[in-house]
Amino acid sequence: MYTNLQKYCAELIGTAFLLATVVGSGIMAENLAGGNVAIALLGNTIPTGAILVVLITMLGPISGAHFNPAVTMVFALKKEISISDSAIYIIFQIIGGILGVWAAHMMFDIDVMQFSEKARNGQAQWFAEIVATFGLVFTILATLKSAAHAVPVAVGLYITAAYWFTASTSFANPAVTIARGFSNTFAGINPEHIIGFIIAQLIGAVLALAVCTFLLSAKEKTA
Amino acid sequence: MYTNLQKYCAELIGTAFLLATVVGSGIMAENLAGGNVAIALLGNTIPTGAILVVLITMLGPISGAHFNPAVTMVFALKKEISISDSAIYIIFQIIGGILGVWAAHMMFDIDVMQFSEKARNGQAQWFAEIVATFGLVFTILATLKSAAHAVPVAVGLYITAAYWFTASTSFANPAVTIARGFSNTFAGINPEHIIGFIIAQLIGAVLALAVCTFLLSAKEKTA
Amino acid sequence: MYTNLQKYCAELIGTAFLLATVVGSGIMAENLAGGNVAIALLGNTIPTGAILVVLITMLGPISGAHFNPAVTMVFALKKEISISDSAIYIIFQIIGGILGVWAAHMMFDIDVMQFSEKARNGQAQWFAEIVATFGLVFTILATLKSAAHAVPVAVGLYITAAYWFTASTSFANPAVTIARGFSNTFAGINPEHIIGFIIAQLIGAVLALAVCTFLLSAKEKTA
Amino acid sequence: MYTNLQKYCAELIGTAFLLATVVGSGIMAENLAGGNVAIALLGNTIPTGAILVVLITMLGPISGAHFNPAVTMVFALKKEISISDSAIYIIFQIIGGILGVWAAHMMFDIDVMQFSEKARNGQAQWFAEIVATFGLVFTILATLKSAAHAVPVAVGLYITAAYWFTASTSFANPAVTIARGFSNTFAGINPEHIIGFIIAQLIGAVLALAVCTFLLSAKEKTA
Repeated sequence: MYTNLQKYCAELIGTAFLLATVVGSGIMAENLAGGNVAIALLGNTIPTGAILVVLITMLGPISGAHFNPAVTMVFALKKEISISDSAIYIIFQIIGGILGVWAAHMMFDIDVMQFSEKARNGQAQWFAEIVATFGLVFTILATLKSAAHAVPVAVGLYITAAYWFTASTSFANPAVTIARGFSNTFAGINPEHIIGFIIAQLIGAVLALAVCTFLLSAKEKTA
Repeated sequence: MYTNLQKYCAELIGTAFLLATVVGSGIMAENLAGGNVAIALLGNTIPTGAILVVLITMLGPISGAHFNPAVTMVFALKKEISISDSAIYIIFQIIGGILGVWAAHMMFDIDVMQFSEKARNGQAQWFAEIVATFGLVFTILATLKSAAHAVPVAVGLYITAAYWFTASTSFANPAVTIARGFSNTFAGINPEHIIGFIIAQLIGAVLALAVCTFLLSAKEKTA
Repeated sequence: MYTNLQKYCAELIGTAFLLATVVGSGIMAENLAGGNVAIALLGNTIPTGAILVVLITMLGPISGAHFNPAVTMVFALKKEISISDSAIYIIFQIIGGILGVWAAHMMFDIDVMQFSEKARNGQAQWFAEIVATFGLVFTILATLKSAAHAVPVAVGLYITAAYWFTASTSFANPAVTIARGFSNTFAGINPEHIIGFIIAQLIGAVLALAVCTFLLSAKEKTA
Repeated sequence: MYTNLQKYCAELIGTAFLLATVVGSGIMAENLAGGNVAIALLGNTIPTGAILVVLITMLGPISGAHFNPAVTMVFALKKEISISDSAIYIIFQIIGGILGVWAAHMMFDIDVMQFSEKARNGQAQWFAEIVATFGLVFTILATLKSAAHAVPVAVGLYITAAYWFTASTSFANPAVTIARGFSNTFAGINPEHIIGFIIAQLIGAVLALAVCTFLLSAKEKTA
């Protein structure tokens, strides 16, 4: 059994590596892509999908590997984590995310403290975040039931797809959204637009929980 | 045991996410690729292969995760699904596919209702669809026998390959074909050319069933 | 138990799909890549690696999924397949490979019968083919011992890597080499240069068998 | 049980293939990418991640598949390998790495003996190597505990991500660093800058060991 401190630290470290990857690979990709944004997005997508598989595989047994306040909220609604623990999880996720962004900035030798000026706003973007987070939470809940050992791969591949099929490149995660506000690079988001994204993400998460509650409730086979 | 309604909804949701991915990633990829179609096709291929692994992994235990009338037809011919159920499956697949296309359009803030003007026609294209669907159904039937747990990955990787080795980019699915008719974007198909594709797909599916019936019929080892 | 005819047909179908993928994705990739050969090679590599995982997963239990005379020769040297069976395997592999190339040509609406004019010659290329085939056979033999269920993924990933780290793009397969002689496209090889490649491949295969015989011979732990 | 000589040779062969892939795919990618460095890095990343999965899968049961003096050092600190064995491992890793670089040069028909002139220097690069090696060792130790069979895939995917999210493209390996000093190509490093990288790598490895000792020490559940 792991201690609570170990669990919180796992959430912090995991979210830090997730954000270092999202932001760091975004910087590297944009630096190298010579203006071709599709190539830059490939160089941002493949690392992000890859690191998610790694992080969830290795930290799942410790903390559940949420790295995402929307996911923690869903498990709190399902009463699989206490309210107080979920609050602490979310705080550690946000701190970890910001530390990850700062680590990326230090590695790429740019100003550590930044605020993004990239507009990500409007109904289409918000709808995209609802869909993105709906799909992510749906993937987690349905795969937990159908093939729990495959959750790390399923989440990594889902995000790989969602970077491209959602117009917002699928943030789908309030901690990721807040942390990206601190980076005026490829993966950034203007801090003024964070709240819209988070509301959309929470709507998507709750919708997914509702649909899964209907879809996954198998009746026991009776003789 | 899942109810019929749960099964039908699983087919609808799965096909919707499949089409949202095919069409949405096509829009994203074409928007960003700066005219390099190979890069756009990479940005369309990787998400499609990835989401197929996710969808089949998580919905397989509920509905079988067909998302494809040609596949449903093959299982009906094998008497593993009833005629009436397979008819309802196909209806839900088509509805789901169209909803997925519309969701992609909404996310990318373009007209929801569209009809494609992209020509996909002629003997070479039809032959490509026969090969593509033959290969898809062959993959499903042979992998179900050799390593059933690997079907999600096998289908995702098969389509990843077939996007490139078939001249038609491997629709291989009548519901996908119909739904793509509703999108005048990268992944679209002129509605007049849908019927040719579907006929080719059904031919490929039946051929694969015939070949597999021969190839996979192992004699029991007798003492 | 599968009949001999089923085994031979599995080798033919598998090699046909392998070559349809190698040649077809090469055509597609070159057509779309706008002259950037690295992008074209990505569009050739990813499908080839993907289809290998699929083909070996689904046909392995029937025929062993060699699709490669060098591999068949190694298993004949290890006395795991008879001389006569291995001769028939090789014939079916070569026929399947050529049929796959022709299918690719038909799908892309180009002349079915072609001969490549692409020079692939000289000591560096031959050394690359020795290394490529050494690595392939080594991968198969070592993974069969360490984790037999992982052979399909190991071969797919090995070839994914070898397309890039060998100067010859890793043919590593005499049937593939012969069949590529019949395609004057991205993946082709001038028929006059086939024999040099095949000799290099057989040298690499025998070297790998020798090294593996030393490296993998674990002593039984005795009490 | 494998003999010591078999173990040492497994480390040599594995590190040789790793370096042949890193350097060979770098040459191929740069040759073909037409000056777009992001595409070149994709063509360097995908093969490297792929071959790592293959090499660790197939050689893990023989030698543990370290291929990395920093990893060997960590296992020596954990007393899972003797000091003398770890010294020999490191020597064979370095020799294997250099042989792999030379093999790549021979395959691509360039001078076998070279020294890199590529500057990789400065605090940001060193910090990147600390992070890169911290993450690699963390991945190995945490995955060994959470899902040991997944270590090959976790390492391959971690390096795939780290090529992009670390500014140094994640050498994370003293043997790799030394060997890359011998190649004046895409993946090279000026020999004068090797020592800085190695110090950073050893710091990252020790930090990861310390963090993992805290994070992974689960208390036994008592009744």
